[in-house]
Amino acid sequence: MRYFEDVAVGDRFTGGSLTVEAVEIVAYAEKFDPQPFHLDPDAAKNTLFRGLAASGWHTAGLTMRMIVGSDAELAGGYIGMGVDQISWPRPTRPGDLLRIEMEILEARRSAKRPDQGILRVKTTTFNQKDEVVQTMIANLLAPGRPD
Amino acid sequence: MRYFEDVAVGDRFTGGSLTVEAVEIVAYAEKFDPQPFHLDPDAAKNTLFRGLAASGWHTAGLTMRMIVGSDAELAGGYIGMGVDQISWPRPTRPGDLLRIEMEILEARRSAKRPDQGILRVKTTTFNQKDEVVQTMIANLLAPGRPD
Repeated sequence: MRYFEDVAVGDRFTGGSLTVEAVEIVAYAEKFDPQPFHLDPDAAKNTLFRGLAASGWHTAGLTMRMIVGSDAELAGGYIGMGVDQISWPRPTRPGDLLRIEMEILEARRSAKRPDQGILRVKTTTFNQKDEVVQTMIANLLAPGRPD
Repeated sequence: MRYFEDVAVGDRFTGGSLTVEAVEIVAYAEKFDPQPFHLDPDAAKNTLFRGLAASGWHTAGLTMRMIVGSDAELAGGYIGMGVDQISWPRPTRPGDLLRIEMEILEARRSAKRPDQGILRVKTTTFNQKDEVVQTMIANLLAPGRPD
């Protein structure tokens, strides 16, 4: 378990892997992003995506799942204060095998709560061809080591 | 249906509402964010959240669902190029009734593809007490009106 004091700028962690099947892409889309390119392989062919593509929010959820299971092992878990940036250079596709790489960009003690820190973390999500499907920069709460 | 030319900076749209029950919060967490404060009402009591709280990514997914059903009615759908910012000032809780307000912050013609535009949109997600559970600024692709 890592507390705020155990993490330094430049530290890297990894997570995954995780497969995504068409049925999961469609199930996510039915609940959260019901658009033709996420719902129906045939309808998707005639869209920008040229075939079934996972919702970006599905990729974000899968990325969170891999963060929770990553070797960063933050004490207190992964509590997001907010996100500074997400990009989806290409969509997650049926059958993709995803993994993540995390890098600590900044680590600062909380001014308001000196027993806590904030970690600014870049998380990149790759498919099995090492193509980037998502980049994200998020700010995570990290408890300090108890006295 | 609105094309790029039909949308102006300052235009506002609304979406929702949508209820969230504890069972859905837990089901989302089991799949995408398996941490005690999202999984188990009892375990959640002794955490920062002081009770069961939806994953921020669940709130983001529900927000996308309300964007898709909103009165913005963008031609071609809601295709996110990326996100510039997300904050979660407070979590979504069991029983919450969510709604969204959208505002067009910027509208610019694509340099590479003049038949398309990019809309920079702020989407704020409120609960039934008009408290903000999420703010997001995202860039959406908007097809131009066909000749």
